[in-house]
Amino acid sequence: MRIAYQGVSGAYSEAAALRLKPGVDTLPRDTFDDVFAAVEERKVTHGILPIENTIGGTIHRNYDLLLEHELPIVAEVKLPIVHNLLVLKGTTLDQVRRIYSHPQGLAQCERFLRGLKEVEIVATYDTAGSAKMIKEGGLTDAAAIASERAAEVFGLEMLQTAVQDFANNVTRFLIVSREGIPLGKPDKTTIVFTLANEPGALFKALSVFALRGIDLTKLESRPIPDRPFEYLFYADLTAHREEFRCARALMHLAEFAPLLRTLGSYPAWKDP
Amino acid sequence: MRIAYQGVSGAYSEAAALRLKPGVDTLPRDTFDDVFAAVEERKVTHGILPIENTIGGTIHRNYDLLLEHELPIVAEVKLPIVHNLLVLKGTTLDQVRRIYSHPQGLAQCERFLRGLKEVEIVATYDTAGSAKMIKEGGLTDAAAIASERAAEVFGLEMLQTAVQDFANNVTRFLIVSREGIPLGKPDKTTIVFTLANEPGALFKALSVFALRGIDLTKLESRPIPDRPFEYLFYADLTAHREEFRCARALMHLAEFAPLLRTLGSYPAWKDP
Repeated sequence: MRIAYQGVSGAYSEAAALRLKPGVDTLPRDTFDDVFAAVEERKVTHGILPIENTIGGTIHRNYDLLLEHELPIVAEVKLPIVHNLLVLKGTTLDQVRRIYSHPQGLAQCERFLRGLKEVEIVATYDTAGSAKMIKEGGLTDAAAIASERAAEVFGLEMLQTAVQDFANNVTRFLIVSREGIPLGKPDKTTIVFTLANEPGALFKALSVFALRGIDLTKLESRPIPDRPFEYLFYADLTAHREEFRCARALMHLAEFAPLLRTLGSYPAWKDP
Repeated sequence: MRIAYQGVSGAYSEAAALRLKPGVDTLPRDTFDDVFAAVEERKVTHGILPIENTIGGTIHRNYDLLLEHELPIVAEVKLPIVHNLLVLKGTTLDQVRRIYSHPQGLAQCERFLRGLKEVEIVATYDTAGSAKMIKEGGLTDAAAIASERAAEVFGLEMLQTAVQDFANNVTRFLIVSREGIPLGKPDKTTIVFTLANEPGALFKALSVFALRGIDLTKLESRPIPDRPFEYLFYADLTAHREEFRCARALMHLAEFAPLLRTLGSYPAWKDP
């Protein structure tokens, strides 16, 4: 097993892969597209992607990529996000003139950053990449906002811990593979569907699950670009797609949903 | 009428306010919290807030602020987001060594930025603030990613237009006020509710609208921090809250929803 992730060693996506399988072999990639490509080209067995965050919401881009690439979801992981201020050993807060991180990391620490005076905020492609840059450049007047793991990987000091604006910051990641063999007993199914623009269409769609006792743990509408009044729906169901009642519910939905795609059945994440 | 917005002159939020009411008086504020405060302290009559973007998704933080502050929604505006590369007149792309913008702006132009060599990407608090900095600092080796309006406001040149990664980038803004007088004939209502963790609870919730012929244009579940398996739901209804069937539907929902808040009834945005 080898998992491709977006970022460099010390990234939250890598931490999520290690949370799923401690000690697993990982492969860093530049972009989310590259993660999908690595799985398709058999460089790795699996890829990991952030899909939603309790503060920032759903990452629509990765739903788009899941639809484009047809790689089934085989697992999920939830990872608490704790941002820390990392520096070279000995650097004090007074000495810090520049702070580096990924735009999302910076956005999640906005209050903390606004409280600092005469500091320049510099965006990078990775939270962990910022930590790497400080280490490799020997930057004594700079800090990175990144994970505890990035501090370990690059031998940096945590000058301040948990500098994010909101405490309950959790990211949910999905794991995809070519073969689609679930990593455990599947009890959750992710689907995407569209509905005709008719009154009560969503109610009818949910009835196929409710009348069969299948619960939803996520439901989100998203307007379809260029097609006003048409919506794409993302849903997570609490059942395996091969379970009789779930298979029948999906067939029922397909009777009237112009598009229906099952992105995978997999075990729901349970915190260790 | 005077509308507070987050950012500086030339910000997308200001452009959205001007799209709603051409020539309206506006007041720039540092943060979203400050926008709510300006309305509460009667410095302005209205405040404007981005609530969702077709690429980035829902801005949960602003839903949280709407729940905290109890300022009713009185209108909505949709604004296409077009990011441009702004420079001082005469600066060429070869000369650009640093590019400034807000983290979200940078994230939405990631592909474009990755294609540039030997350029440092610097995060700021505003897209328009970046443009201002280039103008005021006379920076001949820098560019900002910001709106066309920011180019006009600060007399900068658009070196490249539409540099965002995805064409269909639209942000929806909500307008709030103290008195809650809708800016036009209300035909849309935004609500937030919670449901007990019971199978079929969401289906039951939607039935109160479907059985009365009220359609939903947005529905999104959001896990409640610290309360696993409990969800907050955001919904937009195609009816005025005072319409008989809508008022009855909301009373019906309140019979079993532990929390139900109507954030406002207002006219749905129609593109001019």
